[in-house]
Amino acid sequence: MAARSEEQVLEAIEARRRRPHVKLMDQHVTLSHGAGGKASHVLTEMVFLRAFENPALRALGDAAAVTGDLVMSTDAFVVRPLTFPGGDIGELAVNGTVNDLAMAGAVPLALTAAFVIEEGFPTADLERIVVSMAAAARAAGVHVVAGDTKVVERGKADGLYVTTTGLGRVRPGLALDPASIRPGDRVLVSGTLGDHGMAVMIARGELELEIDLESDTAPLHDLTRVLLDAAGDHVRCLRDPTRGGLATVLNELALSAELAIVVDEAAVPVRPGTNGACEILGIDPLYVANEGKLAAIVAPEAADAALAALRAHPLGADAAIVGEVRGEPPGMVLLDTAFGGSRVVDMLAGDPLPRIC
Amino acid sequence: MAARSEEQVLEAIEARRRRPHVKLMDQHVTLSHGAGGKASHVLTEMVFLRAFENPALRALGDAAAVTGDLVMSTDAFVVRPLTFPGGDIGELAVNGTVNDLAMAGAVPLALTAAFVIEEGFPTADLERIVVSMAAAARAAGVHVVAGDTKVVERGKADGLYVTTTGLGRVRPGLALDPASIRPGDRVLVSGTLGDHGMAVMIARGELELEIDLESDTAPLHDLTRVLLDAAGDHVRCLRDPTRGGLATVLNELALSAELAIVVDEAAVPVRPGTNGACEILGIDPLYVANEGKLAAIVAPEAADAALAALRAHPLGADAAIVGEVRGEPPGMVLLDTAFGGSRVVDMLAGDPLPRIC
Repeated sequence: MAARSEEQVLEAIEARRRRPHVKLMDQHVTLSHGAGGKASHVLTEMVFLRAFENPALRALGDAAAVTGDLVMSTDAFVVRPLTFPGGDIGELAVNGTVNDLAMAGAVPLALTAAFVIEEGFPTADLERIVVSMAAAARAAGVHVVAGDTKVVERGKADGLYVTTTGLGRVRPGLALDPASIRPGDRVLVSGTLGDHGMAVMIARGELELEIDLESDTAPLHDLTRVLLDAAGDHVRCLRDPTRGGLATVLNELALSAELAIVVDEAAVPVRPGTNGACEILGIDPLYVANEGKLAAIVAPEAADAALAALRAHPLGADAAIVGEVRGEPPGMVLLDTAFGGSRVVDMLAGDPLPRIC
Repeated sequence: MAARSEEQVLEAIEARRRRPHVKLMDQHVTLSHGAGGKASHVLTEMVFLRAFENPALRALGDAAAVTGDLVMSTDAFVVRPLTFPGGDIGELAVNGTVNDLAMAGAVPLALTAAFVIEEGFPTADLERIVVSMAAAARAAGVHVVAGDTKVVERGKADGLYVTTTGLGRVRPGLALDPASIRPGDRVLVSGTLGDHGMAVMIARGELELEIDLESDTAPLHDLTRVLLDAAGDHVRCLRDPTRGGLATVLNELALSAELAIVVDEAAVPVRPGTNGACEILGIDPLYVANEGKLAAIVAPEAADAALAALRAHPLGADAAIVGEVRGEPPGMVLLDTAFGGSRVVDMLAGDPLPRIC
């Protein structure tokens, strides 16, 4: 998108204010409902929150408080293809849930895994994926304690779907909460953005692009630990920018905290290959899924210490301070572009990258 | 099956002993791998246990010990059709996981739910199913605290798959364990068998049967509570005979305890309609899934008290003592038939009732 004038930005903000908070539901579920953007939020609000109303779910964090210092998180994985440069659905399913727990400041205690397998799926492929899950669980220091397997007829799945659920224990004394975000807080990311989504898209072979990209899938529990050791109470909240990317996560936080977040485009780390693939596809890397990166909102006085801690960790070498929280306009994410302009970074309306995780 | 002579039974036992414990794997996953019988056990042993090796998973209970008094259980639901007499996939998914926790003697603390939805699925159907899940969760006194939604393209699912995971806390001082089973223990079931599986099969409309059957889907946490109040330490272990039915559950327990279980066919409660449908399909109701029944192994001195407690509960009105544990032949389940003969009740080899849960 081209940079917009200040008037255009103000106009967009006004239009957003006038828009009803929740749109009427579509009559059928579309791929957009699974993309993590606007349609997903409407579905969550209108169907799931309405029926399951409870404070733990309502908080809509990466993991939900259960009782005492315990948190839980669940994720279904439907990525296509099942194996891609840098990982596979098994590793992704373990890391994805470990990371959701880590974003709640929790150490993983146990994982469960449920498999829906399409009839005719090669047993050797299943074995390879399960071995990869086991390796990822070992790397995260957690056991898969329970599981389930269902088989459906040919044509009723796409090889294999995996749902992992994690139980974690929150670091003592920690209180990560978007409500604690204040104007002046800094936005940090732990490394380059968009690598997972682009690696998966290219692995599908439909784009006829020959770019060497690897998924960034990695467990973030240890990176989170060093960050919290360094910046402790000054860390307001953590998110892993998966489906919908950093743009979606920052929109959720801006809405929840009723504050604005301004991102400096020039400061956002993106690999040249990922950037090239995004340009060819016309997709902003801010919207592309990451599976081994975290975003942290940190009080200004601790931002440098947090950045140094991230950079000292192998998974945080490319960490950067990419933005700042402001008071106005509430609920909005703005991008200061490399061209000196500014534009609204809204939630995704469609689904440019289906089945990325 | 016709009743076999004693020689035939002895022959079957000998054949079973000669059989290698774990067969070589098939090269492709088949529906049998999802049926809960022999193929499922081979897959679990050869793929999942081998990769995920840990004591909690190895125990292969309905729910796995996590830490302290916490247990977890996960289940994927792929039942077809999504709605059937007596329930729907949503209610089933909540009750199924609540029951797995209850069979570990645990009170549910929290549930999570993950949805894989096929593009084009009617939003109104999703809403109805989610409302039904919420009602089931309220009935079991538990919240759905976390969730996830993924959407896959048309033809890559069958409407909707739901995976629920539960966290529970085990009743203080309770130690349910198949290793505590002793010769002389009684086998109790809490009611009529086979209703869920047959209701779902008939709801598919492929059988051209006009029998009025309802699924027995129900949460068993309260029935379990009254049973444990009445028989406490005398309850050796509990199982809910879902996929694969009572026959599968008893085979697992007999193998695990290295004891024999003898079932009295005449004592097994089966509704006439269910029995009729089973006869037409040539399926033994012992192999048919239940979703609101428990099987309990109880010390002989407490069997009557346990039975009375079950019968006093609305979900246990048809409870019965259906069998007894013996020392020999170890690992076998035998049925004393109504005709005075005896036959081996082996694990399922194929999958006569696919996608029943």
